[in-house]
Amino acid sequence: MTLLAVGSMAIDSVKTPFGERDESIGGSATYFSIAASFFTKVSLVAVIGEDFPQAELEFLQSRDIDLSGVEKTDGKTFRWKGEYHEDMNIAHTLDTQLNVFENFNPEIPRFLKDVDYLFLANIDPDLQISVLNQIDSPKLVACDTMNFWIEGKNDSLMNIVNLIDILIINDAELCSLAKDKNLLNAAKKVRDLGPSTLVVKRGEFGAILFHEEEIFAVPAFPIKNVIDPTGAGDTFAGGFMGFLTLKGISPNNLRNAVIYGSVMASFNVQSLSFDRLKSLEKVEISRRYEEFSSLLHYDKVQV
Amino acid sequence: MTLLAVGSMAIDSVKTPFGERDESIGGSATYFSIAASFFTKVSLVAVIGEDFPQAELEFLQSRDIDLSGVEKTDGKTFRWKGEYHEDMNIAHTLDTQLNVFENFNPEIPRFLKDVDYLFLANIDPDLQISVLNQIDSPKLVACDTMNFWIEGKNDSLMNIVNLIDILIINDAELCSLAKDKNLLNAAKKVRDLGPSTLVVKRGEFGAILFHEEEIFAVPAFPIKNVIDPTGAGDTFAGGFMGFLTLKGISPNNLRNAVIYGSVMASFNVQSLSFDRLKSLEKVEISRRYEEFSSLLHYDKVQV
Repeated sequence: MTLLAVGSMAIDSVKTPFGERDESIGGSATYFSIAASFFTKVSLVAVIGEDFPQAELEFLQSRDIDLSGVEKTDGKTFRWKGEYHEDMNIAHTLDTQLNVFENFNPEIPRFLKDVDYLFLANIDPDLQISVLNQIDSPKLVACDTMNFWIEGKNDSLMNIVNLIDILIINDAELCSLAKDKNLLNAAKKVRDLGPSTLVVKRGEFGAILFHEEEIFAVPAFPIKNVIDPTGAGDTFAGGFMGFLTLKGISPNNLRNAVIYGSVMASFNVQSLSFDRLKSLEKVEISRRYEEFSSLLHYDKVQV
Repeated sequence: MTLLAVGSMAIDSVKTPFGERDESIGGSATYFSIAASFFTKVSLVAVIGEDFPQAELEFLQSRDIDLSGVEKTDGKTFRWKGEYHEDMNIAHTLDTQLNVFENFNPEIPRFLKDVDYLFLANIDPDLQISVLNQIDSPKLVACDTMNFWIEGKNDSLMNIVNLIDILIINDAELCSLAKDKNLLNAAKKVRDLGPSTLVVKRGEFGAILFHEEEIFAVPAFPIKNVIDPTGAGDTFAGGFMGFLTLKGISPNNLRNAVIYGSVMASFNVQSLSFDRLKSLEKVEISRRYEEFSSLLHYDKVQV
């Protein structure tokens, strides 16, 4: 099975209470594909400028990520500068420079038009629709979004939400999209718009999966040293989709995909940028999956 | 096995975005004992004024709660008036009148001195110590507290924390007590003070149990219609301790106790005051426990 991710590749400057890093690579598609690459072959469609570090492209290739859909164009790469204060669930954007991303109009290479699994990372919903129209007959389409599009391009967003299988979104964005502060009510409203499956990311509080008539909820894997939450949501999505691409879709696999997504996010927050993912070994994923499972397990006792 | 709860009985006036109720009965020991009464026989030690409604005392007795340790004294019952705004995790206190509670000096009746399970609800830590000194040799002592005592009576609080088996506390209070914003670090610091077991209540985000070297974490049972969170923490503690009193202490029982505590809290928030607990049937507890278990269950899949 093949997995394609379309989204942003960026150069981030991030400051958290525990460290800072100028000009490291970031972007939703980058984080997503690194996480997914531990499970499956991933192809990436994105745009970068001339300044994107060659060494980082080589790192992505070393993870067997197919970059043939990454367009290198004149100008500078998309840049994001942000800070986290005491509440690490909230990113404060200091500066955004779209640069080459401003004219991003993703063209899916011919050999990727028949992919089975598609992830539309957080980009303009009009571009998400354009990408989807270029894919022949995907088995599974998942999509992320953010408040910027919920507020600024609501109609386009509604169109894409109607066309996808899985919406992966954080809790505040879900409530904003549904205009309902209760998570269950908001989930129902958004699923009524189209996606049969909804994954709600709750940061340090875990995630909830809505699939058919079922709900599955997990806390986050508790982490002592949260250094930098940048990319946690995309890393979650990468683990989630990577696992599904590897194992196929079933109710139990969707639940496991939430666990593997949480595992990948839990590694990512343990370092600045994606340093931790760079050194990550597959055996560490299995070990943390087991630790996570122990933390969730109990044998039922009736009263 | 016998369970004794010592704490406050109160008359509450509460306003939430979904309703309001003047002068309904409340108090930490009241909520605790009603929840626990679905699992085991509970005895209550508290103080009330002459104005405490007789009908409500009869309701407590109808739940087989032993009130022989409840002292009725001249004056008015402890009163609390509060409001919840949009974020129902935060109670805004409008008025507190200690009334007869001001001179509360719990005396444990002779026939209760040999109880096995003791819950010290959120009262002055000096009183918690005094109660503990009156009990012969309890099998298990659990205790709750709040910011008021963490800030105002820290030394006394440290003394009682050193003497108990289980601290049941919310996440913000844990971090305040430990002076550490990371939940895992805070948990370690507080367990180093004495209690072998720590239960951290996270409101709508669930609960975490720390016991020996193990962690167990659950989300909250998702509720569509959260009407009034008053007493949710005490109801959780009541389900938790009620279940342990019924089934005994073991690592797996502690995990199940967290689930039953969550189940009881999930019912309680569905109505103003404890209306929902008044109509609750035991079979509904079993049914929600099963629903909760389905929501947490997955069959492991390795990668």
